[in-house]
Amino acid sequence: MTRWKLTVEYDGDGFVGWQRQDNGPSVQAALEKAAEKFCGQKTRVWGAGRTDAGVHALGQVAHVDIGKKTTARAVRDAINHHLKPQAIAVLSAAEADRDFHARLSARARVYRYRIINRRSPLAVELGRAWHVPYELDAKAMHDAAQVLVGRHDFTTFRAGECQAKSPVKTLDELSVARDGELITVAARARSFLHHQVRNMVGSLVLVGRGKWRKSDLERALQARDRRKGGPTAPPEGLYLVEVRYD
Amino acid sequence: MTRWKLTVEYDGDGFVGWQRQDNGPSVQAALEKAAEKFCGQKTRVWGAGRTDAGVHALGQVAHVDIGKKTTARAVRDAINHHLKPQAIAVLSAAEADRDFHARLSARARVYRYRIINRRSPLAVELGRAWHVPYELDAKAMHDAAQVLVGRHDFTTFRAGECQAKSPVKTLDELSVARDGELITVAARARSFLHHQVRNMVGSLVLVGRGKWRKSDLERALQARDRRKGGPTAPPEGLYLVEVRYD
Repeated sequence: MTRWKLTVEYDGDGFVGWQRQDNGPSVQAALEKAAEKFCGQKTRVWGAGRTDAGVHALGQVAHVDIGKKTTARAVRDAINHHLKPQAIAVLSAAEADRDFHARLSARARVYRYRIINRRSPLAVELGRAWHVPYELDAKAMHDAAQVLVGRHDFTTFRAGECQAKSPVKTLDELSVARDGELITVAARARSFLHHQVRNMVGSLVLVGRGKWRKSDLERALQARDRRKGGPTAPPEGLYLVEVRYD
Repeated sequence: MTRWKLTVEYDGDGFVGWQRQDNGPSVQAALEKAAEKFCGQKTRVWGAGRTDAGVHALGQVAHVDIGKKTTARAVRDAINHHLKPQAIAVLSAAEADRDFHARLSARARVYRYRIINRRSPLAVELGRAWHVPYELDAKAMHDAAQVLVGRHDFTTFRAGECQAKSPVKTLDELSVARDGELITVAARARSFLHHQVRNMVGSLVLVGRGKWRKSDLERALQARDRRKGGPTAPPEGLYLVEVRYD
């Protein structure tokens, strides 16, 4: 039995999310099915981040145990072959230690949220970014975002159905930058609460529109009440970019 | 009657191309229908580039005559409203001179061709780039591309069904650059023959793979014979980026 670490890209559109569910196709189930076709036995695939329906990944990390003797290249190519024509791709496979666990061993998760800020609707970027037609002040968003960086009780930005034991997390980075009509929010933490990135982005957009000031964001954080936070940004703008390990 | 210049973005997937055809939805027909809903009369929309099925546009230019008194903002927003939910967006509308013609007045057309050069299949970029799994030498492609720049008989890179009067065109720019796994080919000319960019890219990929040298590309050009050219690159990598006017 060899444990393989997989780096995986997918277009979240059309999936119920990473996690296997009864109500539709999941990325996890698709990977398990492809791995089973390759190795001829029942397998379980574990992912570092349980991305929601519609959320994309450029660098999700997963692990799977495979009994037969094989190579990293064969694992990657065979799983990709069996995944077709689904919009999931194994970018790389690497042999991992027996105690490596994609979720539990992860030291940091990096997300990116893409906003297209223009009056006209999206065409080429449809389903790959959040369309915000009101003018946003990205500098004000970046400035306000810094109140969320650090160790805080993030209850205000936590989904009701979140299963984490504690709402206290350490946010290592939250930056906002504009490049033409594209505004990118980068978020990095050891782990995030359910909907945390999308809820933080929803509040930052209130700041960008001038409806909230930095102090309103600070007050919302301190309230520890989801009802004091901004709306949840839609899933199609969110990308799991990287998962870091020791 | 006012003539309006429209700058248009679209995802070519799902359209038979720019031009109205009997066999499926076209971008031109969708724009005409949306403009008619807005102004309440039959309209004709003329485009600068007749992009093929599956080819995208970030900056197609079109013109349309509208009888009723209105503003640029209203033209843009109303057409966008009536285009929904199709993946076509009017980025801007501007009042144009009576003798402005999107196709005939154009001084230059700029295309970009996107290749993702990696072993793994595409997921997030599916339908938005050409997946080439063999390692490509982008520098060799750029170097070879320069033999095509200038005034030449481009019969080797012309589709059989091309309706242009002459196969002689002046290619002002053809550059190839790599950024990680993304290889971008930029092409600029006053006008192109049918399939010219895709046929040039298909031949450049033969150079990138080491199957052709620069001298082979030169020989292909001089042969003035489509059968001596490389394959036609697929439409999903091609973007009409910009159309320039005096």
